[in-house]
Amino acid sequence: MTPPRRLCSGCCRTLALLAILLSVAAMGTAQTPATADPANPLHTASRQELDVVKVLLAQEDAWNRGDLDAFAASYKNSPDTLFVTNQINHGFAGLLEEYRKEYPSKAAMGTLSFAEIEVHTLDDRFAVCVGRYALERAKKFGGDAQGLFSLVLEKTSTGWKIVLDHST
Amino acid sequence: MTPPRRLCSGCCRTLALLAILLSVAAMGTAQTPATADPANPLHTASRQELDVVKVLLAQEDAWNRGDLDAFAASYKNSPDTLFVTNQINHGFAGLLEEYRKEYPSKAAMGTLSFAEIEVHTLDDRFAVCVGRYALERAKKFGGDAQGLFSLVLEKTSTGWKIVLDHST
Repeated sequence: MTPPRRLCSGCCRTLALLAILLSVAAMGTAQTPATADPANPLHTASRQELDVVKVLLAQEDAWNRGDLDAFAASYKNSPDTLFVTNQINHGFAGLLEEYRKEYPSKAAMGTLSFAEIEVHTLDDRFAVCVGRYALERAKKFGGDAQGLFSLVLEKTSTGWKIVLDHST
Repeated sequence: MTPPRRLCSGCCRTLALLAILLSVAAMGTAQTPATADPANPLHTASRQELDVVKVLLAQEDAWNRGDLDAFAASYKNSPDTLFVTNQINHGFAGLLEEYRKEYPSKAAMGTLSFAEIEVHTLDDRFAVCVGRYALERAKKFGGDAQGLFSLVLEKTSTGWKIVLDHST
């Protein structure tokens, strides 16, 4: 029942490049979103925003090498973590289980890419991220999929972790 | 293009009752969600959680008396406020304009109700709220609609305001 959540390829390279460019410009207005806007690649981004972008890049990378555990490591390992798709789901453990069922192989996972990524920091500990995902996948595994996502991330002792994922 | 976002009737009464019950139990575990669970109406909720529930009740009430301005007042009046539906939209001004176009009359607005409301406080200033909406509306105005929403709210000098609304 769980549709692919947020799923990378062409824009991965764009984002990786953007992250490098932003890291040069870095440190800035905490409330200004870090947009993956190729027309404005040198937008001033805060350290927080870059760190959140890195979480997404890591997810994309993990997904595309078929490593579900690494992909899921971007979520906070807590029973309070929320996943909203066509229903409201609670808890990290259930997420991983769902993913394992739905994506039993690298081929079933396909290739994930993000686009139109925006990070909005809320305060020192929380940030919001919105964007689009696209999944390229063989027809026999469900075919291509795409959609929008909004995330809330928390800065924990082990880095920024997703505490709410609403993907459609 | 903008589908109804979060739209009240039967559960309005449930929530109003819940709010009263919760206000008796109040003050507690900031990380525990305030669920609109009739089986557990005396769940201990924090002041913050109750205040967020009140925002939703006010929205429901405003919508159902056809008052779009009052409904929209629950959003932060900022160009950074985010609305995710089938696209990512920015800014309070655009939202209100969209709503006025799409819902030109009380009849076009129909009757909105929320269900399965959960509030998760993040810290003193931010909270997340997820739930379901249902809109009862005459066929000629687009008919009934329902879906899920996730919100991020900020405690501002004028009360809790929605800074991100992802509705599907």
